[in-house]
Parts: sequence; C-alpha cells; structure tokens
Amino acid sequence: MIWREANPGRLFVCRMEFESDLLDSLEEFAKEQNITAAFFVALGAVRNASIAYYEQKEKRYVEEKLDDPMEVLSCIGNIATLDGKVVVHAHAVFSDKSGRFRGGHLLKGTAVFAGEVLIFELRGVELVRSYDSVTGLNLYTPKPA
Amino acid sequence: MIWREANPGRLFVCRMEFESDLLDSLEEFAKEQNITAAFFVALGAVRNASIAYYEQKEKRYVEEKLDDPMEVLSCIGNIATLDGKVVVHAHAVFSDKSGRFRGGHLLKGTAVFAGEVLIFELRGVELVRSYDSVTGLNLYTPKPA
Amino acid sequence: MIWREANPGRLFVCRMEFESDLLDSLEEFAKEQNITAAFFVALGAVRNASIAYYEQKEKRYVEEKLDDPMEVLSCIGNIATLDGKVVVHAHAVFSDKSGRFRGGHLLKGTAVFAGEVLIFELRGVELVRSYDSVTGLNLYTPKPA
Repeated sequence: MIWREANPGRLFVCRMEFESDLLDSLEEFAKEQNITAAFFVALGAVRNASIAYYEQKEKRYVEEKLDDPMEVLSCIGNIATLDGKVVVHAHAVFSDKSGRFRGGHLLKGTAVFAGEVLIFELRGVELVRSYDSVTGLNLYTPKPA
Repeated sequence: MIWREANPGRLFVCRMEFESDLLDSLEEFAKEQNITAAFFVALGAVRNASIAYYEQKEKRYVEEKLDDPMEVLSCIGNIATLDGKVVVHAHAVFSDKSGRFRGGHLLKGTAVFAGEVLIFELRGVELVRSYDSVTGLNLYTPKPA
Repeated sequence: MIWREANPGRLFVCRMEFESDLLDSLEEFAKEQNITAAFFVALGAVRNASIAYYEQKEKRYVEEKLDDPMEVLSCIGNIATLDGKVVVHAHAVFSDKSGRFRGGHLLKGTAVFAGEVLIFELRGVELVRSYDSVTGLNLYTPKPA
C-alpha cells in the first residue's frame, strides 16, 4: 500500500446543473476552488454517458457512448493533478429504463440530468499522477504537500 | 455547479436492524437526531427492495418491487428537507443469487437483512429541496444555515 | 437503528499496489496503522476477483471466483474487529470487457490491477463484530471506545 495521512480539507456539497458535463463541471469547480486533492461520492441521473473500459493487457481504453437516460446509482471518484493540471477520475454505475446496468471509467461527454455530490478535500497531501509503465495508467502517488 | 462549503458535523456509524425498512430507519434516525443535511454510504443485504426509475422525458417515477434477497453492493445517499420535513434520498445497487444486478432510486418498502452505514452530517448548510420544473424533481439547493 | 457517534480519526489516501490482494492489503494496512474502526470507498481495476453471495435462508456464503480483468466501479467497506482481530468487510461492483456486471461480498483472492482508496478512521467508537443468530452473520455493534 502506498499511502499518506491527509488532513481533512474543505467539504463541498454540490448540485450539478442540468445538461452540464459531469466531468467538466467537477474539473471546472476544482480549478475555481483550487482543489488539487479530493475524493467524492455522487448520485443522480444522466441524459447519456461516455465511458471507457481499460484493457489491462493491451493497456488501452476502449470507449463507449451510451445514448440513454440513466440513473446514476453510484459515482465514486477523486481529484488529483497530472503535469500540474487538475484531473478528475471517476467510476460510475448506471441503470437504464429496462434495468440494464452499464458503467465504467467516466469520460467527458456525460450529460447530467441531476446530480448530487459531496466532495472531501484532502489537505497536507498532494495526489500527483504520473505514468506507470506496469499498468499503462497515470496513477497518483500521495505525497506531502 | 451549485454549491456550498459545509462544516463537518457529527459522524454516525450505524447498524441497521433486521427487517427494518431501509429508508424509514434512516428517516427516523435523522428526525431523532435532528439531522437535516448529510450524506451517507452503506453496504449490506436486503430481503427485498422497492425501487424506482425516473423517466426523464415523462417526468415520472416508474416503481418496481424486487421480491428477492439481495446483496447491497452500494448505497449512496443524502438527507435533506422538503417543506421542513426530512427526506432521505438514496440510490442502491443490488445483486441477487443468480448474479443479476438491479437497483435504482430507493423507495420505502425495502426490508433490511443487514446494513452498515456511515453518515456524514453537514453543518453550516441547509439542503432544502424544492420542485424543479426543468427536471420535475425535488432538487436540493445548498444554502447557508 | 443501532448507532454511535464517532469522532473523525485519521484520513488515509492510498494507492493499492499492482497484484496485491485487495482485502489483504487493507487488512495489513489496518494492522500496521492500528486502525480498528473505519469506513472506506475505493475505485480501480482488478485482474480477477473472489466474491461471495450470502444465502439468507441457508445462512451460508456461496463463493465464486471471477477470472477476468474488471473495472472496480464501486467498492464500499469498513474495518472492524472480530475476537480482537481486524476484519475488512467490503462489497464491490465490477464490470468486465463485455459490459457484464458482477460483484458481491469481497473475499481474499482478488488481485488488484490499480486501486485508489480513501479511508475514514473512526475514533471514540469500537466496531466489534460478533455472531448474530438471526442472520448468521458476524455483525458489528458500535460501542464507546
């Protein structure tokens, strides 16, 4: 386990706006508020979604566009930085009208219908993402701030 | 993004009782403890469940009764108020014996088998729900308490 | 509702290591850090997983081994004790390459591909698990520490 103890930072309770882009909204908010390390949980509904599945062997994301209104049953994610820029990473579980489940790594291009989010900012720690050759992912390493 | 910074309030660690109603238990607890703004996460199992899917175009909930014992793989929700009364809003992911996934917006009529919950009370903020004509939902607006 | 108010404890932001065992890593970490009461949320990916479904009537877990790389769309759990030993309890939602959802009560034998975790330690409370004859499960009872 690679870890750091963080101090509790600001606590933001948010409502995402209708037709906003889920990831963009969080990214914009993080920039405005200067949040560089945080975790969040969310629930709500989307008008459509863009997700990806990571092929671990091929080390590439396979993207998919879901053109259906869906409930957001769960969305767990975090805010970190990559090359000094804010990066929002989130995984979501959706269910549609027919009860079909879909979900994955969220991409931009996910239109909010309604969204309720709680953001736990982390202080005293930096979550700096960098390329990890073993997984092919930009993984964060918690570091003292 | 519509948002407020909240102060961390009380932190409640709970075990839901066998055959209690999942939403009622949380609502009763919120009333007893005078919790009017909170988020929570939970896991456990249910004996059955009542859920709803929101038809975004028709602006109505379609309800469904699930008469199977299921694992609660995720339950994320919040506590807010509507017309001065406590409202618990939660989305849950269930899986049954055959591995089938179901879930949605939780309704009353969900019988707990076992449930473990962590509630993060929010202070310095009111989560007041009111009718939103765009979505047809009672959305909260975070306001200073 | 059986409950206690807890004090916020340490806040740990973690990255799970490639090919580590998901539950073992958390258990080892809890032992090293002397964490006996906590909740956590996580996301990431696994190379495979071991899960169980609890048959409520028969009071037994049915185990299943999932030999596929999968996204971890949600993982919610807690750290408690049973007979003085640390026990990690977690439920996870996975999705595989074909978009199939699986998940359940996590068992040891779940190999991490990448994992991001936030652990909320709880102070002033003990989460002591003991056998509950009604459900057949080792349920925690929150007690003053």
